[in-house]
Amino acid sequence: MNELASSAAADKLQAKAAFRPPTVNQVRVEGFFGPRIDTIATSTARILFDRCVNAGMLDQIDPERPNPGQRIPFQGTNSTVTSQMFWDSDIAKSIETAAYALYRRPDPDLEAQVDAVIDAYGRLQEDSGYCNSWYLRIQPGKRWTNLRDCHELYCAGHLMEAAVAYYHATGKRKLMDIMCRYADHIDGLFGTQEGRMRGYPGHEEIELALVKLGRATGEQRYLDLAKFFIDQRGTQPHYYDQEAGARGAQLADYHFGTYEYSQSHKPVREQREVVGHAVRAAYLYAGMADVATEFGDNSLMPALEGLWDHLTQRNLYIHGGFGPSETNEGLTFDFDLPNETAYAETCAAVALVFWASRMLGRGPDVRYGDVMERALYNCALAGLSMDGTNFFYENPLESRGDHHRWDWHHCPCCPPNISRLLASVGTYAYGIAESEVAVHLYCAGSAALEVAGKKVQISQETGYPYDGQIVLKIEPEGEAEFALSLRLPGWARGHAVTVNGETVDVAEAENGYLRIWRCWSKGDRVTLHMEMPVETVHANPLVPNNQGRIALMRGPLVYCLEEVDNGAALNSLVLAADAQFESVEVDGLTGHIAATTQAQRESYLGEGLYSRKAPVRETVHIKAVPYHAWDNREGGEMLVWVRQERG
Amino acid sequence: MNELASSAAADKLQAKAAFRPPTVNQVRVEGFFGPRIDTIATSTARILFDRCVNAGMLDQIDPERPNPGQRIPFQGTNSTVTSQMFWDSDIAKSIETAAYALYRRPDPDLEAQVDAVIDAYGRLQEDSGYCNSWYLRIQPGKRWTNLRDCHELYCAGHLMEAAVAYYHATGKRKLMDIMCRYADHIDGLFGTQEGRMRGYPGHEEIELALVKLGRATGEQRYLDLAKFFIDQRGTQPHYYDQEAGARGAQLADYHFGTYEYSQSHKPVREQREVVGHAVRAAYLYAGMADVATEFGDNSLMPALEGLWDHLTQRNLYIHGGFGPSETNEGLTFDFDLPNETAYAETCAAVALVFWASRMLGRGPDVRYGDVMERALYNCALAGLSMDGTNFFYENPLESRGDHHRWDWHHCPCCPPNISRLLASVGTYAYGIAESEVAVHLYCAGSAALEVAGKKVQISQETGYPYDGQIVLKIEPEGEAEFALSLRLPGWARGHAVTVNGETVDVAEAENGYLRIWRCWSKGDRVTLHMEMPVETVHANPLVPNNQGRIALMRGPLVYCLEEVDNGAALNSLVLAADAQFESVEVDGLTGHIAATTQAQRESYLGEGLYSRKAPVRETVHIKAVPYHAWDNREGGEMLVWVRQERG
Repeated sequence: MNELASSAAADKLQAKAAFRPPTVNQVRVEGFFGPRIDTIATSTARILFDRCVNAGMLDQIDPERPNPGQRIPFQGTNSTVTSQMFWDSDIAKSIETAAYALYRRPDPDLEAQVDAVIDAYGRLQEDSGYCNSWYLRIQPGKRWTNLRDCHELYCAGHLMEAAVAYYHATGKRKLMDIMCRYADHIDGLFGTQEGRMRGYPGHEEIELALVKLGRATGEQRYLDLAKFFIDQRGTQPHYYDQEAGARGAQLADYHFGTYEYSQSHKPVREQREVVGHAVRAAYLYAGMADVATEFGDNSLMPALEGLWDHLTQRNLYIHGGFGPSETNEGLTFDFDLPNETAYAETCAAVALVFWASRMLGRGPDVRYGDVMERALYNCALAGLSMDGTNFFYENPLESRGDHHRWDWHHCPCCPPNISRLLASVGTYAYGIAESEVAVHLYCAGSAALEVAGKKVQISQETGYPYDGQIVLKIEPEGEAEFALSLRLPGWARGHAVTVNGETVDVAEAENGYLRIWRCWSKGDRVTLHMEMPVETVHANPLVPNNQGRIALMRGPLVYCLEEVDNGAALNSLVLAADAQFESVEVDGLTGHIAATTQAQRESYLGEGLYSRKAPVRETVHIKAVPYHAWDNREGGEMLVWVRQERG
Repeated sequence: MNELASSAAADKLQAKAAFRPPTVNQVRVEGFFGPRIDTIATSTARILFDRCVNAGMLDQIDPERPNPGQRIPFQGTNSTVTSQMFWDSDIAKSIETAAYALYRRPDPDLEAQVDAVIDAYGRLQEDSGYCNSWYLRIQPGKRWTNLRDCHELYCAGHLMEAAVAYYHATGKRKLMDIMCRYADHIDGLFGTQEGRMRGYPGHEEIELALVKLGRATGEQRYLDLAKFFIDQRGTQPHYYDQEAGARGAQLADYHFGTYEYSQSHKPVREQREVVGHAVRAAYLYAGMADVATEFGDNSLMPALEGLWDHLTQRNLYIHGGFGPSETNEGLTFDFDLPNETAYAETCAAVALVFWASRMLGRGPDVRYGDVMERALYNCALAGLSMDGTNFFYENPLESRGDHHRWDWHHCPCCPPNISRLLASVGTYAYGIAESEVAVHLYCAGSAALEVAGKKVQISQETGYPYDGQIVLKIEPEGEAEFALSLRLPGWARGHAVTVNGETVDVAEAENGYLRIWRCWSKGDRVTLHMEMPVETVHANPLVPNNQGRIALMRGPLVYCLEEVDNGAALNSLVLAADAQFESVEVDGLTGHIAATTQAQRESYLGEGLYSRKAPVRETVHIKAVPYHAWDNREGGEMLVWVRQERG
């Protein structure tokens, strides 16, 4: 089997390679995510559009509509909402979701709806290329005066992402053309040249969007502009001070009052700690990783590695969410991971998937693949109800029964964000370099890729994430020599890999990926097998609230107890150290696997708040369900970290 | 012993009696509180004055000083502070503390300092009687335009309390005269008569202060005015709407935006749930109880009883603090009692002592005496460092080591509040009715009371709260027939009482007080004995964060673990269900009793945040100290609710 093992030549190749994701039209996802994407295609994509329109967004965007000003009637009620400077981003993410939905399943009505919005943007765009609905219609004359607070570049970035997605999904270029003109306009305004703005976005996003646009168009200037925003950030003299001065504003007169809130407290290459608003942070780091990949910029790596460690070793919830505080929608202090009050915004978990996926741009590393999977399958996935109609904004790890998905939110960032992620989840499954395909995520489905100059079809057959057996069929056009790198998830106690029935030594894996270099031909089959028992996980003592408690995991999935399965007062339940678990189907959620075991339930013998009487115990059966599935049946209590006695 | 038992005649008497506290000059406290009061007398009282003066308060008050406007240089630094509309209250509580200090120990310098401030108030007061430094000097022309937010009546109330205290302590009437003129002025402005304001304070306080002033002066109008404020509160049309309209203000334009914040959401007699700002709430309820006592107003009792149950059965921390949220400095939802983020403001625990003591105005009831004792000895007492120099504002029940007492605070309400409470703690120990003395608190010391028309000296010899043996000596002038009612604390598993060596049947106790009706003569001795083992206390399952944990109590004291005694990572410690405790002295705090026992300490075997490896355990000795004593040695972690396994 030596020819399968990694070779020095391949090593060298991999070290220099840039791994890029496939586009949405290269992948087809079935299995676990298939029904979720179908639901988005048939239901959620339209819901997002309808709710955006109901919220009044089109009134803000379309010059043919009466200008709504800053207050807009809300959904046919007597109340009004404030039109928002970030609405371009919400409609953009809805267009992006619709794009993936249309690729999944043609829907002429939805497509017509999207085209109408794109036409409105065509009418909105200035001859100069400028194209922001807030500053063109609601606050004219104020453009580019407050990059720090006003989401102007952020909106541009989301529209660029939407344009790329719609182009890949439908082949239509109109939005792409609009956004290239806007990108050209921005490119002409920003830069280190005399007379140009040296600013950068208060809410990062445009960096990763410009890389997407650059990749889609082949236009180097867009990549350069992304790098410019990365390089300028946090430099002195501080741009946000200068622009505040130019506005005549007091520096302290903004809501969060710190540079850390927008990660502009120091140049990005000097940053080592994840700070401030969680979504902004992860979008920035994703953009930094993209720039590191596209430019081979090693100077960004110490910061990216340091930030990654700071997040994952100190500030990451077990479900892959981060940012515990509602106050700043972000970070507080190390090891501050409260469960019930966790903010852990859906958008932050989505952004972490983005960041982790970009960290794989310079080569496979299971540290990134595992965290991407953790955030995707748990915190992020919980953000969308199974029926595709409701959305979590916060993702606590414990609830007294009063936490439920919203049908909308005054800041509707999360609904289209989780929707566009899930609808395009196949693009996160693979990384493609010149002579290597890395498989980052396992899910039934297929991908039509191009590697080593050949067309290669790769398909996966698997019941993952509920089953740890994956069969990959490799079907090149003729024969093709390249490396297939399989991620060996860190949560598995062991991995077994075969190629055409012959065992490959998984000890050859590097950075947690097994690279199989081979001349592939049609009919080749690779299998990966992992046992998937229920595991109990303990938390570092520096997270005081999780001591004496365990979390249940099965494969990549974090589990939780729900009141609907276990009754109320979930903290009255105690697991034994040697609890044995069985896998059964979740009641009421076909196809989803629960874990059952015996536990003790305590009954309080006191009256009122406090009592000297010790509770009595009885043996009960409890059932844990995947975290992502919670609050999809009856509302009630929920608990991730369950009491356990070690005796 | 039948003559000692309660009689029907005494029952009847007691049912109608109004119990009032002694004045500060009637009591002398030694034992446990003695050294704390001495420290206040020698140190804290002066510190409060110095810090009030350094904060610039005198500049605001004294017309002979240059008017500071709204920004004042701060303590000789280059920075400034905002002068505050509530500063009269802080200087008032400092005067009150100084009054008790001067009664404890003459201090001509301190007395001269107080007299100088009183002289300044004399200069400040208008001929009309109006006397508020903010509206006379900082915002002239705006008086009485915003009762809801601007602390105007609150400041008046605190100055009245100061005046009464200073009069009792020193015999000097000047401040009393000033405040009677101010009270007369207010009495002339407010009322249901045509042309008068029907308003009431946004921050309650003046109600209980007017009752104090009425009792001290015998002036019924002050009691009537207190009742007016109580009766008006929350009635329709809502006064706060009317005054906001008169100011041309939007009703929603204030920080907390709800009537509940100031307990004005409905008439007080209809209220059953403790809501809003915790200190305001308890001050209101204290005033309601005072009015119920002075007017025999039974119509207030269903509300007071309902509010009491709502607090104590659903919203009271075990250390006697309440109000978990920093956001509104108050209540959130039932059973929301987080430990680490507990706000549990010192002032709220002080206010609860006030409320509980006033609930005893209509007769002894151990429910109120026990809660008063719990709040006093635990949450409130923690508010002042042992050396009398530093102050807690928040009182969490768990800390990662970053919570310490302040030497001052931008809102310095707590420092003089806990100081005045402790310096006058003897006045909370007794309730005096016409023919009955109730002993609510046990502490070495003596009281010179008047009951049944006779002077009676009552002294207590005891090591309470560390020892459960109390000897009371009753020394009337000649002979005196009256009931001595002893509180039998609910935390004790049993009580033994003797009179002159003869056992009294404690089963005769009513409402948790043993009433001993007798013709008392010099030399009579009553003993009360209670065992005081360390007890473990469990929390109702509706407080999820305390499940699987116990709190340690010994007598009235709540205990906690500190890092200085037990090392870091206190949540790695696990008690067994059958843990046996021994009492030893607290290292470094002479005279204070710690509890030691064996426990298991877990060591984390994983790396990073999460691990499948179960922690290993070793047997260690742990030591718990009284909560009130924490953060008086080395700073570090602290934990009240300790993990316990029941096996």
